[in-house]
Amino acid sequence: MSATLLDIFVSADQIAIRALIDAACQARYNKDVKAIAATYAPHAPLFTLAPPLAHDGLNVEQTQGWLDTWDGPIELEPKDVKITVSGDSAFYYGFLHMTGTKKGPEGKVDFWMRWTVCLERQTGAWKIVHEHASVPFYMDGSLRPAFDLRP
Amino acid sequence: MSATLLDIFVSADQIAIRALIDAACQARYNKDVKAIAATYAPHAPLFTLAPPLAHDGLNVEQTQGWLDTWDGPIELEPKDVKITVSGDSAFYYGFLHMTGTKKGPEGKVDFWMRWTVCLERQTGAWKIVHEHASVPFYMDGSLRPAFDLRP
Repeated sequence: MSATLLDIFVSADQIAIRALIDAACQARYNKDVKAIAATYAPHAPLFTLAPPLAHDGLNVEQTQGWLDTWDGPIELEPKDVKITVSGDSAFYYGFLHMTGTKKGPEGKVDFWMRWTVCLERQTGAWKIVHEHASVPFYMDGSLRPAFDLRP
Repeated sequence: MSATLLDIFVSADQIAIRALIDAACQARYNKDVKAIAATYAPHAPLFTLAPPLAHDGLNVEQTQGWLDTWDGPIELEPKDVKITVSGDSAFYYGFLHMTGTKKGPEGKVDFWMRWTVCLERQTGAWKIVHEHASVPFYMDGSLRPAFDLRP
């Protein structure tokens, strides 16, 4: 995902979508569940790191429960991001560096995930209508998640 | 991802994209690496089940090596698919049932993955410009991939 001449042109929509993504990250840093929920369209199918296969929209209670498992802020740093906009539809993908400290034995968290986000402009504002977050897993017999990869 | 009235309208572009997706599945069933490669734009960032975090386009040699690890056909059955088109840009997401038999000790494979695909119309034909395939993993301490989930 290296930069090309085309990538230098950044549209107002790309800026607005990048601001939404940054707001989504900041909301997790702030552990502000309402601000997290505000980035999603209702019933957006969410493919998250943990089961189930898909969530039917952001569940505020479950998300609050997850936020409460962290001791201090959750840091999310996007990298190598590409935003494609066409009319009232857009998609976004890149890497996301997640760092922080979980309460309990898990402790310090530090890994990179892949993040693909599909968006629609709804009554003038961009909203996430689908997202897919994942970590690949080693097919070396161990099946362990590849938390050691760096982009 | 239940059906709504809006989902009943299917455009010619949606039909063309569904045909591309079906061709991508059929090409894997046939273990036809050229037909697999034909569904992708050059240098499409691919987030696959196994490392690395991203592939820079479909690597024909690596893909042939992967196809050769299977004994007989690789079956891929899409389910709960949603296709969104806007101009020359589109995205697609849903579940994919993968079944078949690997050579060696791994043997029978039977699980569901999540599959998000971003597409662009390039010189009249839809091509995959990004894809993201994954299985969630259990955050119960085991970190094992959730191969037992069904949509």
